[in-house]
Amino acid sequence: MSRFTAHPTALVETDRVGEGTRIWAFAHVMPGAVVGPDCNIGDHAFIESGAVLGRGVTIKNGVMVWKGVHLADYVFAGPGAVFTNDLRPRSARLPALRAQEYAEADWLVETWVEEGASIGANATILAGVRVGAYAMIGAGSVVTKDVAPFTLVVGSPARPRGRVNAEGRVLRAQGDRWLDPASGKSYRFVSDRPEECT
Amino acid sequence: MSRFTAHPTALVETDRVGEGTRIWAFAHVMPGAVVGPDCNIGDHAFIESGAVLGRGVTIKNGVMVWKGVHLADYVFAGPGAVFTNDLRPRSARLPALRAQEYAEADWLVETWVEEGASIGANATILAGVRVGAYAMIGAGSVVTKDVAPFTLVVGSPARPRGRVNAEGRVLRAQGDRWLDPASGKSYRFVSDRPEECT
Amino acid sequence: MSRFTAHPTALVETDRVGEGTRIWAFAHVMPGAVVGPDCNIGDHAFIESGAVLGRGVTIKNGVMVWKGVHLADYVFAGPGAVFTNDLRPRSARLPALRAQEYAEADWLVETWVEEGASIGANATILAGVRVGAYAMIGAGSVVTKDVAPFTLVVGSPARPRGRVNAEGRVLRAQGDRWLDPASGKSYRFVSDRPEECT
Repeated sequence: MSRFTAHPTALVETDRVGEGTRIWAFAHVMPGAVVGPDCNIGDHAFIESGAVLGRGVTIKNGVMVWKGVHLADYVFAGPGAVFTNDLRPRSARLPALRAQEYAEADWLVETWVEEGASIGANATILAGVRVGAYAMIGAGSVVTKDVAPFTLVVGSPARPRGRVNAEGRVLRAQGDRWLDPASGKSYRFVSDRPEECT
Repeated sequence: MSRFTAHPTALVETDRVGEGTRIWAFAHVMPGAVVGPDCNIGDHAFIESGAVLGRGVTIKNGVMVWKGVHLADYVFAGPGAVFTNDLRPRSARLPALRAQEYAEADWLVETWVEEGASIGANATILAGVRVGAYAMIGAGSVVTKDVAPFTLVVGSPARPRGRVNAEGRVLRAQGDRWLDPASGKSYRFVSDRPEECT
Repeated sequence: MSRFTAHPTALVETDRVGEGTRIWAFAHVMPGAVVGPDCNIGDHAFIESGAVLGRGVTIKNGVMVWKGVHLADYVFAGPGAVFTNDLRPRSARLPALRAQEYAEADWLVETWVEEGASIGANATILAGVRVGAYAMIGAGSVVTKDVAPFTLVVGSPARPRGRVNAEGRVLRAQGDRWLDPASGKSYRFVSDRPEECT
């Protein structure tokens, strides 16, 4: 058993929580969920059996992470962000569906959020999308398609608005380079990843 | 008293919960709420006094169902979906309003979700709308108008995008018929409801 | 210590809660938060250290109020409304950022909601905006810019749609006056505030 910290009101039912992780009030981590080390799981969050969180993931308050949702290292999920794992949800109790459809579990659609990506507050992530590394999803956005790495998307449905660096700053195009006005750093993009120009 | 199941941390204050219903962690069902049999009420959900849920309703985590919201049999409310019951909300503590307006309770506007309809994750349902039977509200949508039965709506504000069947599959128009490409079934719509063609 | 009411399951860790305030089930008010008198804080709400709430504020269920968010007297925050305080969120555990950026706390961007304003259900408020007095934010909207007093905004991103009065009713332009069709009252706007015409 690793050494993690949980608030007395939190329910932690998995034995796979990494060292240094903190779990806050009224949060619920179900049996079989996998939570890496050094994560932070806010109040009223819910991590379902079958969810997988890497190292250093930040789950803000009220976020629910379902079976089939994979969050890589250092992902940030803002407050009230909502993941999904079903593209045609119906009450599993509907008589026509109970035997047939939900039993087969063919409804489960997996979602992948790659290293360092940020999901803005109250954003909605449709099942089946892949959010690329260090992408930034604007608050309140509805993500219906894959998001390229180091890309900012906003809106309903979310559309690309520019490129960001690992620090989350929006870059300005300058010829074939990309400038971070705050730091003065300049980048070239190689295979969708920024390389700092020296 | 019917036999239902509640997590030890759940607060169930009504005596009108149907048999076979399950209520999960940190959920709160208030006095006077009516919950039918065979429902599933997720973690952190809230069912207010005056809310009415039929049979086999699925309430995913964090959903709040207010007084004046009526959910018919087999409705699905996705995670973080938000209902409302007031079209011009103000703090009831505002001195100008305290005596006058909120006391009269003329602010309450009822919402109806009909049999088998699905409210997508993180969708917002404006007070006063009627969501037709087996309609499908896309995740993250904001519903400001009535939704016809067996209709998919998406966006902010939500607009119709097509027809769905009871299984939640989007149908393709073929002359005067509608095809479910997954099952090969073909339908005619009679009074807004699909009838399978034999 | 003032006399306020808290549900037995609520966690109230600040000693700055005003008289007459009520705090409901599974809510969490952190040390150092400031909550005025006569407030109402719903189930599953979260008030962070550094948040400031005035008198008579209504916080509906599931709302999170962060450090840097200032809610003036009689503000209404609808169910599931989400505030933010960071415009380029990243996991604070990201090695590149841990020392440098989050330590400096230069990421905190303050938000101000002025007297009597209403934030609709499931709306998202971007960090740094100012919502004017008695403004009305439509349910499900995403607010990315300042909102003028007594103004209704809706959509993603939210755009102005009209003027409202303190009661939250949408006004109709009549020459240089503004009419509330429900009450028959007529207003002139002086410095963005309605003055009733006698």
